[in-house]
Amino acid sequence: MLKRKNSLKILDKTSKAKIIIKKLKKENKNIPIILVPTMGALHQGHLSLIKKAEKYNGIIIVSIFVNPIQFNDKNDLKNYPNTLRADIEKLKELGVDYLFLPTVKDIFNSSFQTTVSVNELQKFLCGKHRPGHFNGVSTIVLKLFNIINPDIAVFGRKDFQQLAIIKRMVIDLNLDIKILEGEIIREESGLALSSRNKLLTKKNYEIAQNIYQGLMFIRSEFKKGKKSSVQLKRLLVTFYQSKGIRNIEYINIVDRNSLIDSKTVRTGNIIAVAIKLGKIRLIDNLKF
Amino acid sequence: MLKRKNSLKILDKTSKAKIIIKKLKKENKNIPIILVPTMGALHQGHLSLIKKAEKYNGIIIVSIFVNPIQFNDKNDLKNYPNTLRADIEKLKELGVDYLFLPTVKDIFNSSFQTTVSVNELQKFLCGKHRPGHFNGVSTIVLKLFNIINPDIAVFGRKDFQQLAIIKRMVIDLNLDIKILEGEIIREESGLALSSRNKLLTKKNYEIAQNIYQGLMFIRSEFKKGKKSSVQLKRLLVTFYQSKGIRNIEYINIVDRNSLIDSKTVRTGNIIAVAIKLGKIRLIDNLKF
Repeated sequence: MLKRKNSLKILDKTSKAKIIIKKLKKENKNIPIILVPTMGALHQGHLSLIKKAEKYNGIIIVSIFVNPIQFNDKNDLKNYPNTLRADIEKLKELGVDYLFLPTVKDIFNSSFQTTVSVNELQKFLCGKHRPGHFNGVSTIVLKLFNIINPDIAVFGRKDFQQLAIIKRMVIDLNLDIKILEGEIIREESGLALSSRNKLLTKKNYEIAQNIYQGLMFIRSEFKKGKKSSVQLKRLLVTFYQSKGIRNIEYINIVDRNSLIDSKTVRTGNIIAVAIKLGKIRLIDNLKF
Repeated sequence: MLKRKNSLKILDKTSKAKIIIKKLKKENKNIPIILVPTMGALHQGHLSLIKKAEKYNGIIIVSIFVNPIQFNDKNDLKNYPNTLRADIEKLKELGVDYLFLPTVKDIFNSSFQTTVSVNELQKFLCGKHRPGHFNGVSTIVLKLFNIINPDIAVFGRKDFQQLAIIKRMVIDLNLDIKILEGEIIREESGLALSSRNKLLTKKNYEIAQNIYQGLMFIRSEFKKGKKSSVQLKRLLVTFYQSKGIRNIEYINIVDRNSLIDSKTVRTGNIIAVAIKLGKIRLIDNLKF
């Protein structure tokens, strides 16, 4: 049996990780390897993904890698929170087996030049506003998949477009990886947990509470009978403005698979928003 | 031990191939799986790749798939030779274990939308003249790698840029696949074998003999002391024109790894050419 608790082992090199994982696969033939990819600054959202992974009785490998090629905004990369010591403690407490913690140089050697693009799904929502972001995501996720060779990988639903893109990539590239989806974890106020929340000013943190409240309000309007996407989106703009949210990057109501805008909103559609508070960009979404 | 001779099994579906290969991997733990990807119309060039593969005492899987997304020219795709019955006979004679023979629909489902790009290396040579071609190549090769899960894959040196791109992709995407390189196989005249040779008119077939003769001539001029790339390329243009080759797509002398043009030619550089005879495009290359 696998040891749990305090047995976290750190794999700090790709080459080392590959050797260890080959060995694990040989020795534990019927035990799945489960990857939880993160950029660190772990919060309850990440931890819930790990708890989800634990149900599969596998070997759990969490990766922490702040992937430079998915940051279209240099300041966002520079300011991305780093809480490695605390992260490691959390992973130990949860009984995670391995932490894959590579350097940027190890992941991207100087001649690196390959891009994976999921061409259609990345045209919408965040993809429209963060040029190159999803190419960076697909590419690093494929690399992590090839390094760790997991049977299962877990992604959260907050990055709803990311999840759709990764699921599509897995099919399109004939990968044998089961993708698990983790629910959005929220504060009591409803604010979706995000590593970027801690970068908000106190005032903007207060304002941010309204992001989710707005989504809930729109869903209740939908349930009362309003089906026009244009009308619902306008209602949300008005709601947000009344709460001091002025910089709305997008509000879209989309088909959850194709990510194409719904004109007439249906049950199962997703309302997705990105807003900016100061320099901090936050996203959230809710299923109708 | 593995049976040889006449035991060719055909895998006509991706899902079937995946199941069989998983079984093979379980049952034959230390025997490598070797993939030889082709587009059919097999000639001695392909067969030499298979013979190269045989030295590794593995399970040999040849794929035949005329990949539509790597054809930038619709007529080239339409006219690409198909000699499947003869191909199968040749594979049986060589004792190939499996033929992976999927349909286009099986490989590219209707929502398929993912592209793999090796961004720098595809800017040169054929990549410059066949927009999208190498994206199509990298994407299908990665898919074949993920379906067949080979330990070793074999590619010919005639598609010298393709080989460079695939080797780069394997490194960049952290794949555990050893790439074997097959020499260019030539007719007695020196003409490089190509499935497209059989599409040439009799007259153009005669003219095509001079492609390689020209490369040999330039190499001998280099060995006599001419080191200027511009001068050597001019000599080759004059040589080709004197032999009735009028449509030269490119002549480049490049570094074999970066594919960047050499101004001063060095031992180890590659001279690569693409010429058109009628509607048929032929490539060849030679190492200095």
